Order: sequence, then C-alpha cells, then structure tokens
Amino acid sequence: MHMSVRVAVAGASGYAGGELVRLLLAHPEVEIGALTASSNAGQTLGSIHPHLTPLRDRLLEDTTAEVLAGHDVVFLALPHGHSAALAAQLPDEVVVVDCGADFRLENEGDWTTFYDTPYAGSWPYGLPELPLAEGNQRDLLTGAKRIAVPGCYPTGISLALAPGLRAGLLDPADIVIIAASGTSGAGKSRKPHLLGSEVMGAMSPYGVGGRHRHTPEIEQNLSRAAGAPASVSFTPTLAPMARGILATSTARLTAGASAGQLREAYAAAYEREPCVVLLQDGVWPRTSDVLGANTVHLQVTVDPRQGRLIAVSAIDNLTKGTAGAAVQCLNLALGLPELTGLSLVGVAP
Amino acid sequence: MHMSVRVAVAGASGYAGGELVRLLLAHPEVEIGALTASSNAGQTLGSIHPHLTPLRDRLLEDTTAEVLAGHDVVFLALPHGHSAALAAQLPDEVVVVDCGADFRLENEGDWTTFYDTPYAGSWPYGLPELPLAEGNQRDLLTGAKRIAVPGCYPTGISLALAPGLRAGLLDPADIVIIAASGTSGAGKSRKPHLLGSEVMGAMSPYGVGGRHRHTPEIEQNLSRAAGAPASVSFTPTLAPMARGILATSTARLTAGASAGQLREAYAAAYEREPCVVLLQDGVWPRTSDVLGANTVHLQVTVDPRQGRLIAVSAIDNLTKGTAGAAVQCLNLALGLPELTGLSLVGVAP
Amino acid sequence: MHMSVRVAVAGASGYAGGELVRLLLAHPEVEIGALTASSNAGQTLGSIHPHLTPLRDRLLEDTTAEVLAGHDVVFLALPHGHSAALAAQLPDEVVVVDCGADFRLENEGDWTTFYDTPYAGSWPYGLPELPLAEGNQRDLLTGAKRIAVPGCYPTGISLALAPGLRAGLLDPADIVIIAASGTSGAGKSRKPHLLGSEVMGAMSPYGVGGRHRHTPEIEQNLSRAAGAPASVSFTPTLAPMARGILATSTARLTAGASAGQLREAYAAAYEREPCVVLLQDGVWPRTSDVLGANTVHLQVTVDPRQGRLIAVSAIDNLTKGTAGAAVQCLNLALGLPELTGLSLVGVAP
Amino acid sequence: MHMSVRVAVAGASGYAGGELVRLLLAHPEVEIGALTASSNAGQTLGSIHPHLTPLRDRLLEDTTAEVLAGHDVVFLALPHGHSAALAAQLPDEVVVVDCGADFRLENEGDWTTFYDTPYAGSWPYGLPELPLAEGNQRDLLTGAKRIAVPGCYPTGISLALAPGLRAGLLDPADIVIIAASGTSGAGKSRKPHLLGSEVMGAMSPYGVGGRHRHTPEIEQNLSRAAGAPASVSFTPTLAPMARGILATSTARLTAGASAGQLREAYAAAYEREPCVVLLQDGVWPRTSDVLGANTVHLQVTVDPRQGRLIAVSAIDNLTKGTAGAAVQCLNLALGLPELTGLSLVGVAP
Repeated sequence: MHMSVRVAVAGASGYAGGELVRLLLAHPEVEIGALTASSNAGQTLGSIHPHLTPLRDRLLEDTTAEVLAGHDVVFLALPHGHSAALAAQLPDEVVVVDCGADFRLENEGDWTTFYDTPYAGSWPYGLPELPLAEGNQRDLLTGAKRIAVPGCYPTGISLALAPGLRAGLLDPADIVIIAASGTSGAGKSRKPHLLGSEVMGAMSPYGVGGRHRHTPEIEQNLSRAAGAPASVSFTPTLAPMARGILATSTARLTAGASAGQLREAYAAAYEREPCVVLLQDGVWPRTSDVLGANTVHLQVTVDPRQGRLIAVSAIDNLTKGTAGAAVQCLNLALGLPELTGLSLVGVAP
Repeated sequence: MHMSVRVAVAGASGYAGGELVRLLLAHPEVEIGALTASSNAGQTLGSIHPHLTPLRDRLLEDTTAEVLAGHDVVFLALPHGHSAALAAQLPDEVVVVDCGADFRLENEGDWTTFYDTPYAGSWPYGLPELPLAEGNQRDLLTGAKRIAVPGCYPTGISLALAPGLRAGLLDPADIVIIAASGTSGAGKSRKPHLLGSEVMGAMSPYGVGGRHRHTPEIEQNLSRAAGAPASVSFTPTLAPMARGILATSTARLTAGASAGQLREAYAAAYEREPCVVLLQDGVWPRTSDVLGANTVHLQVTVDPRQGRLIAVSAIDNLTKGTAGAAVQCLNLALGLPELTGLSLVGVAP
Repeated sequence: MHMSVRVAVAGASGYAGGELVRLLLAHPEVEIGALTASSNAGQTLGSIHPHLTPLRDRLLEDTTAEVLAGHDVVFLALPHGHSAALAAQLPDEVVVVDCGADFRLENEGDWTTFYDTPYAGSWPYGLPELPLAEGNQRDLLTGAKRIAVPGCYPTGISLALAPGLRAGLLDPADIVIIAASGTSGAGKSRKPHLLGSEVMGAMSPYGVGGRHRHTPEIEQNLSRAAGAPASVSFTPTLAPMARGILATSTARLTAGASAGQLREAYAAAYEREPCVVLLQDGVWPRTSDVLGANTVHLQVTVDPRQGRLIAVSAIDNLTKGTAGAAVQCLNLALGLPELTGLSLVGVAP
Repeated sequence: MHMSVRVAVAGASGYAGGELVRLLLAHPEVEIGALTASSNAGQTLGSIHPHLTPLRDRLLEDTTAEVLAGHDVVFLALPHGHSAALAAQLPDEVVVVDCGADFRLENEGDWTTFYDTPYAGSWPYGLPELPLAEGNQRDLLTGAKRIAVPGCYPTGISLALAPGLRAGLLDPADIVIIAASGTSGAGKSRKPHLLGSEVMGAMSPYGVGGRHRHTPEIEQNLSRAAGAPASVSFTPTLAPMARGILATSTARLTAGASAGQLREAYAAAYEREPCVVLLQDGVWPRTSDVLGANTVHLQVTVDPRQGRLIAVSAIDNLTKGTAGAAVQCLNLALGLPELTGLSLVGVAP
C-alpha cells in the first residue's frame, strides 16, 4: 500500500522553499501540491529554480489560505511575521511546518528584543536529536500538528554543545561561538554586499556583539540542555560559498570535567542518531561533506590552555539547517519513518 | 518482490568512484559490495570520502579480479590502460561498466594517437540518448554485458550538436567548441596548477590545438550522428568550480537551414528523453542547475552574423558526465527502469 | 620638478570608478580631486569602497559639470548615455577620458542597433597597442583631449586577433569567439543572477547569438586591423570569479598561411609593447596572473583539424580592460611616460 | 640622489617568495638580485610565477650562501629549520629578514614543543605597530641587521588584542580566538585537501586544541602587550579563498572596563599607524578589502552577554601577513621611510 500525502509549500521561490521542493521530489510518500510565492506568483518554477527540472513548467500561485487549504501538510517558508496569520486560517488537522522564526522562541521578551513583528507564540521545536536535561524532544514532535523548524545556526551549534551541557561537563555561562555561513543563509535579498563580486574571496563578520537573531534561540536550546540558564557570545561570519555552516562552539569545562568524559557524553548522545555523526578521532568536519545532506558532522576536543571544549560542527544550512529538518518533522508528524526521503550522503567534491 | 543486484566499484577512492558510491547508496535495487583502491587500499572510505557518511567505516580493498568476482555488476573507475586486463579476468556473465577511456574509441588509430597504452578494442557506448543517422544507441545497451561510459566533455558536446547534424542542418566539417570544466574533471592528481590557491579566481585553457583526448571521441559521436565524417576544433578550459561543464558548441548551418528547422530538430530529438532538457526559449543553461543530477540542460540559437548554430549545454561532469551515466547503463544492462536511483534535480544554489 | 595633474572621477562609486581611484592613488603625477556619484553622493568613499583605505573619509559629490570643472583630467565611469551631455559642458582644454561605451563606435547604425540612447559620435579609441592595417593607434591618442576607453571584451579579443588579420593570415569573415568574464564586468546591478549564491559554482552564457553590445566594437577593431570588413560570432559567459576575462578567439587561416608565419606576426606586433605579452611557447594565459595588472597575457596555436588559429588572452576586465587603459590614455594625452602609475605585475595567487 | 639597495630572495618559488618579488618590483629604492629556489632552481621565474611578468625570463638559482652573498639585504622565505645555517654564513653587515618561523620565539621550550628542528634563537620581531606594556617595538627594528617577520595569524590577532591588554581592560588569561585563512597560507604543498576540488565550497578547521604552531607566538605577543602571561585558545580554519585572514579575537573584560574605554585605547594605539585602520563605528572588516595591501582592517565591540570584547581583523596573509611586513622591515632596517614601496590600497572587488 502506498500512502500519498498532499503537500503545499508557501514561499517556494526562495532558497528554503526551493530546497523543500528539491527534497519533496525525492520523497516517496508525497505528492507535491500548491507551490506559492508573493512577487513571483504567476511565473514558472523553472524560471525561478531551473534546477528543479521535473517541475519546470509548474506555475507559482499566490500565497493565500485558500490555495494552501486542502493539503495534508503545509510548509511555510516565508519572511518572519507572515506565518501566524496564515496558520490561523488553516484547519487544525492540517500539519503546518514553519521554516521561519515566528514560533521558535518560548519567551516573548526574547522575541520582542530581536524581532520587529508581534510575538506569535511558540510551537514544538523541530530538532528531534537535541539532548535535553529533561524529557525527549522527539516525543514532542511525533504526531504534532504544528512544528517550528529550527534556525540554521542554532541547529549546528546546539547539537555541538548540548551533550556536554546536559552532562554537567560545560559551564553554561561561559560559551563563545564563532560560525561561518555560506551566502544562501542570507536568502535572495538583493543587497550589494551579497553580490558575487563582493562575496567571492571575502570573509566578513556580521551581527557582531550578540545582535544576530539566532542568539536567543541558541540560548533557549542550550538552557534546555543544561537545565540551567545558558548565555552565549555568538559571532556569525559570511564565507565565500553558497551553502554550509561551520560552527566552532567553545565552552569552559566545569571543575573536574575531562576530555574523556566529554567524548563519552557525545558518543552516548548521538550513537543512535543517524543524522548526527561524531567523526572518528582526529577527523574534522568540512561543510562540503554534508552538502545537500540531512547530516551533521561533529568533532570535539579540549584545548588544555584554556580548559575549553572546542566543538566543531558542519551542516548544510538549507538541508539539515532548514528544509531537511522540515521534511524530518513532516515524517515525525505523520508517523512515517523519520528519514523517509532524506539523504545522509553529501554531494562532494 | 525486491531484486538485489550486488555491485562492486574498482577505483572507489577517486572522484568518479566516490560519485558512483554516492549514487549507488540511493539505488533501491543495489547492494554495494566490494569497494577497491590501489594506494588507498586498507583505509576506510570515510577517511577518503567523508561525505559518504553511511559507509564511513567500510574498508577499501585491493583492486584484483578475485575481489571483484562474485558481483553481478562491476564498475571500473580506473586510470586508462587498466581496464582491459581486469575485464578479461571477469566472467562473461558479469556486467562490466567501464568509466575510463579504454573501450570508447572504435578506431585504433585514434586511440594510438591520443593514448600511450595498447588499444583494447571498443564496447557499446553508454550514451543512450545520442541521436544517430542510423540505428538507436539505446538498443545497443539494453542487456549488454560490457559498456563503455562516455567521457564528460563528449557527453555534453555530442548531445548539443547531434540533432542538428543528424537532420543535415549543420556542416560536420565546420565545428568549433569551447568548453569550461570544473576541477574535479582533472581528478585527484596532486599537480600544482590544481591547488585551490591556483584555481580560485582563475580561468585557463589546456590541451589547446586539438590535443585533448576527448577530441576523437567527440568526432566519433558526431560522425555517427551526421552519417559523415565530422571534424572539430575543441578547446577545453578550467573554471574555478569543483563540478560542472559548460560547453559552447558551434557549427555552420548548411545551405538553406533555418533556426526554426533547428529548433524543431532538437525538440524532436529530446522530447522523450527525460535526461536531456531543451530549455524554454530564452533560458540558458547554468552548471549549478545540474549539480549532482543526471540531467543535461541545453539551449540553442543561431548567430546570424556567421550563420552558426550556438548550442550551449550544462552537465555535472561527475554525474551525467560519468557516474550517473554509468548507473543509467547498469539499469539498461539489467533491464531495470532506466532512471532507477537517479535524480534529475540539481542541488542549487 | 614634479608635475601635478588634478583629476576627477565621475561615477566613483561603481566598480570601474573604484578601480580608477585605486590606480590613481598609485600615480605619482596625479592629485585626486572630485569623486562623484549619483545615488551614493553624500556618502564616504570608505562606506562604498572600503579597500580604498587612504581616502576612506572622502565624501562623494554629485555628478555635475560644476563639480567636475576645474580639473585637468576628468574620467567618466558612467552608464552609457550620460557622457555626451556631461562632456559637452566641460571646457575643451580639459582632458576627458570616457570609460563608458558612448564614444566607441564610429558607425551610427551599429550604435543604434545595440544601444537605446541617441548616438553621440566617436572619440579616438584608447587601445594604443592595436595593430592596424593602416596608421598607428597610439598616434591618435598622444595629446588627445577626448578619448574613448575600449570595452573589456574588445580589449582582450582585438589584441588576440589583430596581428593575424593585419598580416593577411586570418579570414576576417570566419571568426568564432567564446569568452568567460568575472562578475565585476556586470557592474554592481542588484540582479538576482549576480548574487553570490547564484554565481559561485556556476558557469552560464549570456547575450548568445550576437546580442552582446561589445560585438560591433570587436568587429570595428578587427576590420581596422584587417583592412577589410570583419564579422564575428561572439558568445560571452559568466564565470565564478570577481575579476578577469579569458577569451578564446578563433579564426580560419587563409590559404597558405602557416603556424610559423602567425607566430612571427604576433611576436613582431607586440615585441615593443610591454602591456601585451606573448607567452613563451607552451605556456597558456590564466586570468589570475593578470589580476590588478595592466597586462594582457596571450598565447596562440593552430588547430590543424579545422585550420583555425586558437588565440587565448587573459586580462583583468577592470584594469587593462577599463581603468588601467584609462590611466594609460591619461598618460598619452598628457605626454607622460605611457605606463606611469601602472603595474604590469599581477596579484597572485 | 637615488639609493639602490641590492636585494636577494631565497625561496622565491613559494607563495611568500613570489609575493616578495611582486612587492620588490614596486619598490623604488631596490634592485632585485638573486632569486633562489631548491627543486625549482634552473627554471624561469615565469614558469613558476607567471604573474611576475616583467621578470618572467629570470632564472631561479640554487639557494646557497655564495649566491646570496654580495647583496645588501637577503630575504629568507624558506621552510622552518633552514634559516639559521644560511644566516650564519652571511656577513654581519648584510640585512637578513627571515619570513619563516625560525627566529620568532624567545622561549626555547615553546619552540621545542611546536617545532621539530633545533632552536635557533630569536631576532627582533618585525611587527613595529605592536603595542607593548613596556618599550616600543619599532625602535627594536630601526637599523637592525637581523629581523624575524611575524607569522600571518599572529599579525592579525596580536594587533586586534594588544591595545586592550596593554590598557589593562582585558583579562590575558581568558582569550578565545577563531580565525579563517585562505589556502595560500598553507603554501604550495601538494596535499589532497588543498586541491581546488576539495577547497572550493568548503570550510574546515585544523590544528584544533591549541596545536597550531602560531599559538605560542600569539601568546608571546599578547604577554608583551599585557605585561603579564597571556594564554589563548586558538582555532584556525581553512576558507575557500586564495588569500586573506579574518580573525575573530575575543577576551573577557576586566572588572570595571567599558566599551568606551576600549574604543579609546584602540583609537589611541593606532591613530598614528597608517597600516592599522580602526574602521568607523559599525563598519566591519572584510578580507577582500585588504587584498594585496599592507593594511590591517580592524573593528571592535563588546558582547554584553558575556562581557567579552569581540575584535575582528582582516589582513592579507601574504602581504601584511608576510611579504609586506618583510618589506616594511627592510625599510626600517635601512632607515628608509617605513612604507616605501608598499600600498595601503586593496585590490577589490
């Protein structure tokens, strides 16, 4: 018997939306329904995303509740601030998976500090592998009707620090993170600094000083892992590549914690998680190895000079960082095998 | 019922071999058997190809007939000159798909002019979509036990010119081709000019003056399409990207030939070929749109100043240009649906 | 004694304008006066071009004849269609060097076919090294008060074909050219296809079928070199790099012409031209080797299969392709040593 | 009157050596003498460094004391372990500027821990702008006959942290640094992970856990700035670009220290240093803006969540990070104006 889930994507003309369609085309249980856009509505998918060859003649529709209704699952891949109104118009039985930021933060004050639209509340957070001080994140997602897909930086960073925090081996108050992202993380906005001529050959930071919007989301995740308030200094940088995030996450070891204990904690946390791979000793992650894959590559060591854990993780910001996680959430919501339609194999070199 | 084909890859540590394993991991009818290497034998696959995450602990074995025997299909991804001896030791009933050059050329003189090892003969040529003056290339591959996978440049170029030649609309004696390839086309050889520091920001030609080894293979294909001897001036260039070939293939129109006739010939040639996509009018191919896909993007126009067809094609040199074509050949050889396990969707941006 | 020439740059916020300021900062005889812009007027140069460190606090002024008057030399680096009106308002004794297209074409019909603004006439063409059937291009520039700087593609291509055409060794009616350019050639326009996410890893053609505006300029140059009408098929492509043009220019040899004669013709044409370097036999140009330099790297061979010359040239589109040529023209106009302030050394790797 | 200094470069075939020759070609007081190499001796400079166009016919000589003797200045750009023996054979009056690591470390134990050759001692450290707790680094270099050029990472990092440490505003025991370097920093070694196919699209860390050889050099510099022992956690990463280092250097503020005090300390430290530019508030460094320049772009802020200074610096690893610093040292050693022959202007975009 073949189950067929009818799926719509709102915001299919953006990078996250395009990646969703790419992954859904490989999903054996899914039928791709409406694909919507705002200013690009009326155009063919092929004119916006020529790589989605089999659907090149599909027309993008307007993003309205009418168009989206009548699907079993609706993915929202919209700028923040647009999801709440749309979700409210969709029937309760429709699974809604939001790839935007709207429903990620549990604390209204965090939202208000970092975003410029009204607080919309929070939904179950779509990172099933996240080690928690209490409870199991995956359980919150199984069968859920509303899911908030994590941000790309928080995915790579939270998985890199949570095992050590949960085990009490890292000080949640002394965390320093510096990450490099490919340009697709900034979306398709036509800003001069995102032009190819500006980006190639260039590394630069942005949002320095704790001003990136993913900061409170990272702290929320790490606090849940530690069972105590976590505080981070997070600096993102822009790297000359289209996809990928390499995050270097560091935290001070608590008194008595050892490198061996840390390695054990990480191995235990992920030994049954096929999407999170603690690499063999001495091998370090590389963004190109997870391109297009729903995989996190992770390695940890202790820098003895400062008594700090150095955890390095690589993800594809569009796949495990966004659209792959969203498909994983769809599978959990519908009770399908969690990795249906997803690949753990990167496209390299 | 589930058919399980046991497959080996000789030369799994190279780029073509790694891409084969990547594709075979997604093939539902295949069980991956021996993976062999020469100097890398004994190492884990994960240390050579970290992107092949699910098989990271697999050991690479020595490339010997003993190791390869006992599989239903053997892929050879070896430097030229090694395939003949190995294939001769494999039972006749084993399907052997050679990704190297050894069995591509039908004319011994062509081989001798361009290669430095003895001529090994020729096998059915694994480009099922190639339009021919006589016969059907796909028929030669269905059920075949020995198949020669085309070179990467010849794939993109031959498909771009064959329809016009077959239709008598192009002069086979006046063909000028200039193509740009990503660096993976040069393999993993540790030559100084292939270092990242040298390649990034740089375009350069090589093999200029008809000296590239793919030249006679291109002429062989185009001659078969035209039903008359074809002669080409082919200049390859190296582009600052890891994957992809953009080929600009030009040929003088024959007397009376028109742009409309050409477009019709191309549309007819590929309307039932899902892997070869004649893009809508005005849209031009881009290598990134076919990354990791078994797809050829193609567009044609006539430059009225010179009365020349300008046909531009984009492929991924490692996928449709090598390993994807090899899997397509496996499917044809075994009577499976031709695109089993292959994706037509590129990984972009 | 130290001559000090007061120079203004109109359009200093663009890529050509920025490169002009970069070069002028290294010019020992020049004092940099007004730097003007349109929408960026009022901003500091450092906010637009942070690499121009020593002038980071300079304010960009409005582009008006009043601001530009009072300089010895005015460079115009504006979109086409703006130079004529501005130049008409500047005194005759001011040297005006136009980096745009407005005054390059001698034939009004060519202009009208390719451009959408009224024909403005033509000025002496700023390519002093161009071999001509009759006369000497450098002589037309020495002491000139109005100079049109060549387009970037025409510079690399014309120098690559002119010696053979002038010598009667190449057929001016059978020329096929395919060139790859870095993205800065497209300027700072915020088009989606120029975003870093789209450009990295991608090669694509544009203006295919003789529709690029540099086509008539190339033909004009080659006709002057041949002493007969030249006709070209020219296809430009976009490459994943910020700067540089690699042009592969091919032309059929005339009856009796030999590779040896061609090499002699090229050697003779450029033996006293320090900016045009015929590389030693067997060495091929690479765009990275001329980055930031006022140098053309050139190599030629004959492809015997088609009896075609293959001439490959590399330039930096912003330096010898635009701003370096403009400074060279300034030197010629003022009677300074021609290479004052210019470097022939690329920044590599 | 025109002084002419005769200069030799040992190791001219590497990236540092090539950059030295590039800069020396622009130095008005220098005559380029012997250029030496080891395995490349006997080849032309043009075959190794085609970008050094004007010297393309120069032959590389063997690296021997005989060849190097008879010059006023000798630059050593050799793998570590080779400088001491060579320098010992050169007359005392010859200025020797070592671009390698051999003479950078003052503490033999540091050397022995990180390097595999005998300790050679230490020379005056060629970073004249380094703020010190006591004394003036520039004074140690003026007129010196032996100078050790700093490592590339230590240059960008030390200048980014020293002002705050000298002012007592930063805790020298709590420093976390993560930096991204272009591939030329790894030299021309033909390692598989440095191939273009591997590097493009990839970010990866290396030397994690305090194992990079620049670690003790950074600590040495920061200790001299703080007047107390400094300890760092330093993680370098490899970025998909040929040149450039972006370093994110963080340190905990001491009790009572404020952002305002820090900004004042940085402004004061560099207001008379043309090579070190504290960017205007809100503007952040970008590696491409200092390409080919002897300039450090620097910006600082305080992350209030952790009470940490975040200092981001950008340099060109081959210019201010190596060869530019070496030329600056030559100028100081000879009493020439410090920036003679050096450019502060980057080549961008």
